[in-house]
Amino acid sequence: MDYAKESLKLHEQWKGKIEVIARTPVENEEDLSLAYTPGVAQPCLEIQKDPRRSYELTRRWNMCAVITDGSAVLGLGDIGPEAGMPVMEGKCVLFKAFGDVDAFPLCVRTQDVDEFVNAVYLISGSFGGINLEDIAAPRCFEIERKLKEKCDIPVFHDDQHGTAVITLAGLTNALRVTGKKKEEVRVVTSGAGAAAISITRLLLSAGFRNIVMTDRRGAIYKGRQIGMNWIKEEMAEVTNPERVKGDLAEVIRGADVFIGVSAPGLVTKDMVRSMNKDAIIFACANPTPEIFPDDAREAGAAVIATGRSDFPNQINNVLAFPGIFRGAFDARACDINEEMKLAAAHALADLIPEDELSADYIIPKAFDPAVGPAVAHAVAEAARHSGVAREQD
Amino acid sequence: MDYAKESLKLHEQWKGKIEVIARTPVENEEDLSLAYTPGVAQPCLEIQKDPRRSYELTRRWNMCAVITDGSAVLGLGDIGPEAGMPVMEGKCVLFKAFGDVDAFPLCVRTQDVDEFVNAVYLISGSFGGINLEDIAAPRCFEIERKLKEKCDIPVFHDDQHGTAVITLAGLTNALRVTGKKKEEVRVVTSGAGAAAISITRLLLSAGFRNIVMTDRRGAIYKGRQIGMNWIKEEMAEVTNPERVKGDLAEVIRGADVFIGVSAPGLVTKDMVRSMNKDAIIFACANPTPEIFPDDAREAGAAVIATGRSDFPNQINNVLAFPGIFRGAFDARACDINEEMKLAAAHALADLIPEDELSADYIIPKAFDPAVGPAVAHAVAEAARHSGVAREQD
Repeated sequence: MDYAKESLKLHEQWKGKIEVIARTPVENEEDLSLAYTPGVAQPCLEIQKDPRRSYELTRRWNMCAVITDGSAVLGLGDIGPEAGMPVMEGKCVLFKAFGDVDAFPLCVRTQDVDEFVNAVYLISGSFGGINLEDIAAPRCFEIERKLKEKCDIPVFHDDQHGTAVITLAGLTNALRVTGKKKEEVRVVTSGAGAAAISITRLLLSAGFRNIVMTDRRGAIYKGRQIGMNWIKEEMAEVTNPERVKGDLAEVIRGADVFIGVSAPGLVTKDMVRSMNKDAIIFACANPTPEIFPDDAREAGAAVIATGRSDFPNQINNVLAFPGIFRGAFDARACDINEEMKLAAAHALADLIPEDELSADYIIPKAFDPAVGPAVAHAVAEAARHSGVAREQD
Repeated sequence: MDYAKESLKLHEQWKGKIEVIARTPVENEEDLSLAYTPGVAQPCLEIQKDPRRSYELTRRWNMCAVITDGSAVLGLGDIGPEAGMPVMEGKCVLFKAFGDVDAFPLCVRTQDVDEFVNAVYLISGSFGGINLEDIAAPRCFEIERKLKEKCDIPVFHDDQHGTAVITLAGLTNALRVTGKKKEEVRVVTSGAGAAAISITRLLLSAGFRNIVMTDRRGAIYKGRQIGMNWIKEEMAEVTNPERVKGDLAEVIRGADVFIGVSAPGLVTKDMVRSMNKDAIIFACANPTPEIFPDDAREAGAAVIATGRSDFPNQINNVLAFPGIFRGAFDARACDINEEMKLAAAHALADLIPEDELSADYIIPKAFDPAVGPAVAHAVAEAARHSGVAREQD
């Protein structure tokens, strides 16, 4: 199917992929008096006395904002705020379908960090959570950090953390399949965008010890002089303990795991052959992976994942974000923290029964109905254990 | 019925009066590929090429933001942004029920004009129109003016213009009933908030010539020294041509029309008796009017309107805003201008057939199904005639 053409035609027919509907009847004067004036004054006064009541008396408890500045939309780059909206609406559809979360799309007309942060903060009382989407790195890191500081609701940049959670889930099972240990493996990542950095951070949180990040200039190490920025400097402090240098071909030699969120065709068969025995390859560039699964397998890789639905082991964000927000909302969490992300990853990994686990089945399928509830449950529990749940306040 | 108690109970059951739903199926991989990646890239690129396509490929064409700062909610005053949300959600319900407009509630956490304006402007690409709600005067005038300058979508402050449109509609028919002429009548208004000022402005636009505004210090006139602000100064320039002074009791003497959007019980029977023959009284303070209809009638008033549904001639905003936005959206108007408001008022007035027009029936009923379409049609036509429709661009 020509997805581009067919999708455009459908978008013209749909005239919007989301809709706002009323949950209350308005058929007569009495309905009006209860849903609107004069009755509505009472819930207003209740919230004035105690703003937490907004979670009981309005839709806030289930409402997530899906917000972009249009600067890094899909693989399309900086296409502008309005042009990012079809993706934001699509994301809202997935939130509803997979997590029963009400999600509303917003695009913000600025690429100034503080202006963006301030605008989103100012409207944050209207929502129970904020999902940032398709914002270019490294600006996205600063935006997320500042919003998390200012807002009293969860702020989550899915391009970073969603991808990281699913990668960790898949990698956990890939290690099980190959009998390797997270404390011992050497991991090489490729790409220095939001996803690569967040994956690296979450793997470190999970107990991985030896991760070497690479960008188009090769290994990122402490003291590298060219092609650095503040976030790469920060990552150089906590990765690459052996201060390995050189391009991807050099760095990947002897590695156990390759995780690519970078560019098509970057990894050759020779590179895979140079890796440690039972190599694990996550080639997630989309739509064309760093190396195609058949080539990787031929070159000796034991487990291969991609971002595509037409190969086994798809790293698909829809596995994580709906359940993560569902769980955060159920516990009325004020944050989505590291513990909750780790819990989501482990819940995803554990969904595959031991006797079904194999090189071609390390990650649940996107349409497995067990996924959302399992992730939500684990995330809500982690929120409670880590002290960010406010459901009992 | 105890509306306060019953409404609170219902709000607890409803858990939100609005909901965001998906308009597209997500049942399998193919659905995902069309509503989301990779297919969604194509509509994104179309909008990048021509941002106007956002009205065809996303929900923007039908999406109105309902925005408050929580500073003048109903008669409750400055109760804060979150506490205003039950009213905003209620308004969204009415938008949908009476105008088939998708409306989404937002509260903004600032009372600084420029900060508010900037935040709303920055997210305005996500919407087809902006309805401001329950913002205190005189800040609301500045906010509306600045937003209208910055935004390329309609910006409408319903507390001002909705009320003004319906008042003009009712007054037009009240003059028909009493045989008076707008160019000749003397009108006295009471109140100096958003509604009073907007009503006065629209009556002037419609051709009324002699309007005296009063506030708690009496008539507003050019040169008054105390209790003035910039908006009252502005209004003093265009009203009260005879520079009448004195309190309401003095000013109302000999007047043909009284329009109150002020405080309960402000008008006495003696005041009504002092008015010109066949006096017209719009006593719209809510829930307790400036004078009750029975008292006004006893004192000789010919036509009486209030804000209440339990008396004839209710000035109810729901008669105007849903149809006004429906019409503006249908014509893809970039503004809701004076012509469109006048057209809405005349459409409302003309809905009552000449043989049914009477002192007790000058304004259509809120649940008359002819109202929304008639207003929408007139407003869309006025948008086309006044050059703000962009449907053909």
